[in-house]
Amino acid sequence: MKISCSKELLTHAVQTVQKAVASKSTLPILTGIYLSALDGKLELQATDYEIGICCKIDAQIDEPGTIVLSGRYLQELVRKLPGETIHILSLPAEKTIQITSNSAQFNLLLMPAEEFPVINKLEGETSFLIKDNVFRELIKKTVFSCATDEARPIFTGALLEINRFNAKMVATNTHRLALKEDNLENSEKEVKIIIPSKILTELARLLVSEHPLDVVVSCHKNQVSFSFDNVYIKSRVIEGQFPDYNRVIPDSFATQVTLPTDNFLDAVERVSLLARDGEYNVIKLSFENDMVVINSNNPDVGKACETVPAVIAGNGLEIAFNAKYVTDIMKNINSEKITFSFNTPLSPACIKPVDDEHYTYIITPVRTS
Amino acid sequence: MKISCSKELLTHAVQTVQKAVASKSTLPILTGIYLSALDGKLELQATDYEIGICCKIDAQIDEPGTIVLSGRYLQELVRKLPGETIHILSLPAEKTIQITSNSAQFNLLLMPAEEFPVINKLEGETSFLIKDNVFRELIKKTVFSCATDEARPIFTGALLEINRFNAKMVATNTHRLALKEDNLENSEKEVKIIIPSKILTELARLLVSEHPLDVVVSCHKNQVSFSFDNVYIKSRVIEGQFPDYNRVIPDSFATQVTLPTDNFLDAVERVSLLARDGEYNVIKLSFENDMVVINSNNPDVGKACETVPAVIAGNGLEIAFNAKYVTDIMKNINSEKITFSFNTPLSPACIKPVDDEHYTYIITPVRTS
Repeated sequence: MKISCSKELLTHAVQTVQKAVASKSTLPILTGIYLSALDGKLELQATDYEIGICCKIDAQIDEPGTIVLSGRYLQELVRKLPGETIHILSLPAEKTIQITSNSAQFNLLLMPAEEFPVINKLEGETSFLIKDNVFRELIKKTVFSCATDEARPIFTGALLEINRFNAKMVATNTHRLALKEDNLENSEKEVKIIIPSKILTELARLLVSEHPLDVVVSCHKNQVSFSFDNVYIKSRVIEGQFPDYNRVIPDSFATQVTLPTDNFLDAVERVSLLARDGEYNVIKLSFENDMVVINSNNPDVGKACETVPAVIAGNGLEIAFNAKYVTDIMKNINSEKITFSFNTPLSPACIKPVDDEHYTYIITPVRTS
Repeated sequence: MKISCSKELLTHAVQTVQKAVASKSTLPILTGIYLSALDGKLELQATDYEIGICCKIDAQIDEPGTIVLSGRYLQELVRKLPGETIHILSLPAEKTIQITSNSAQFNLLLMPAEEFPVINKLEGETSFLIKDNVFRELIKKTVFSCATDEARPIFTGALLEINRFNAKMVATNTHRLALKEDNLENSEKEVKIIIPSKILTELARLLVSEHPLDVVVSCHKNQVSFSFDNVYIKSRVIEGQFPDYNRVIPDSFATQVTLPTDNFLDAVERVSLLARDGEYNVIKLSFENDMVVINSNNPDVGKACETVPAVIAGNGLEIAFNAKYVTDIMKNINSEKITFSFNTPLSPACIKPVDDEHYTYIITPVRTS
């Protein structure tokens, strides 16, 4: 292999595939980044068998070839190289690759390229297009609700449901559920897949183009791929039956409260300062007389109390929540106001931004003595 | 106690004393911050017996008093309070303190104030003045050379030597030594104390006034105190005999090399990327033909090579160093150029900025095969 490419492009490509590089692995080859040079393009690949990421950049290819290098060293090194252009030359006799840029010259040991599990493009039975900004919003507004506990794998992913012109993403850990939906252009497909939260988080990080672009999503058996710009990501899907989320969302509410988003979030965060140690991560809300009173009580430290003005339609009530489940959703709401809706102190409550009918958050109260 | 004070001032005071709050301690009272209100002033104190810090701010004192609160909770809480003014009221019957600010109200449990080891001002036998910016420079340019290993306590601190109109600070871990000196105004004192590096680092963090101010340094037996602005810091000194640093600094050098600071630092950092794993943290320098060639070789990863233009007076030579000992000093040099001076590949070398005769760094080479 003998190639030259821009430092900026190579740095971008290495950072793109970096999250798929295994940090430690029983298979050392998975700690490497695979580089393949052919026809004016340099393709980088990394995979830890959970997720595989490819990124293709323009390069001047003097001699095509394929190598694998330590992911950790390649990342640190490329970023720090002094010149704008990077030259890569393999020296098979020495089993090294020579990387030069201005006055800097590095010789890195080659890893055995033939051992790398090259990522094949998925030949999708079903594929559809979704705009990257739409997809990013679906992910960011739901993925935080996934379970982190691996005990019930189905809840460690989010459901992506495509139903012709409608796209929905749903995530839950059984104590809270986030649902975000949006419109799709020109779709005729019906898809239901559960995507691991780790892959969704990585996708949201990479879906940051300046101009909206299409993401091609392909599904085949138990795999899914996402293709956009010069990036290709492949992942397993989580198998199993996602619970019927429609049954979790109450049809009507006895009490509807309108609250100022920032003001309420700040107050809950302060009160939760004293609430967050272990089992005491509980805040109590009481809605009455045009205000909500937020309380916490930690016998080892003290107690906190805040009031926030509220517009209350329906009966007053007292209800308790895990503070983190309230702050998590509040941080994802861009509207100035939210509606917080209740039936009884022990039945699921609902938080929505006032101006987005297509974003719903269900939260189960905590039973207190 | 019943007081009101500005959130900004109280936040500043809590952050100032925070580093002296014990995070975990066999004596729970040391995890607290002591607050004492009297005569229009609120004084905060914290100590972990290694270091004690006091900070005094203006406050409206309606009822004087003395309390101790959890340092961890006070810090997080004060910073997040919603209003510009904070009201503090002790409720002895409930053994709590009430902190209010706008709509927020916190009741924190009191810690037993009578158990707090109140910091008494040192009645210094010897005291002198030093400008805060001068003191900060002395610290910042030397303290990184202290030993982190507690095996030889004397090297975990830096020597402060006051000799009438001259102030020197010296730090060494026996493999490298940093010496910085500056002038003192109006001093008649002679002082030699070894101050723990932890206290010096904390001092440098706090010595950031916009206008130069005097720091009063007082020594008494095995203690030293620093007083400036509204802050008072007390620490033990390290007892023992600091080695004669003058014997470590060679009188003359056979080779003197002038190098561009940034260019050399960048090159050394890149080459050390491949050098830094465990025992391989070694770079080799060879000075010849108007350039320095910097090499590293890590059998598990690969090797690196850089060249930097150099003006060499005297004989060429090859010499090896711990890469970190070179980058540490280079990051503390503000001049555009340095002089790097040598005698033989096995004798101590010297790095100095070209335009600061009063900053000297001695570094012992590594023996390579």
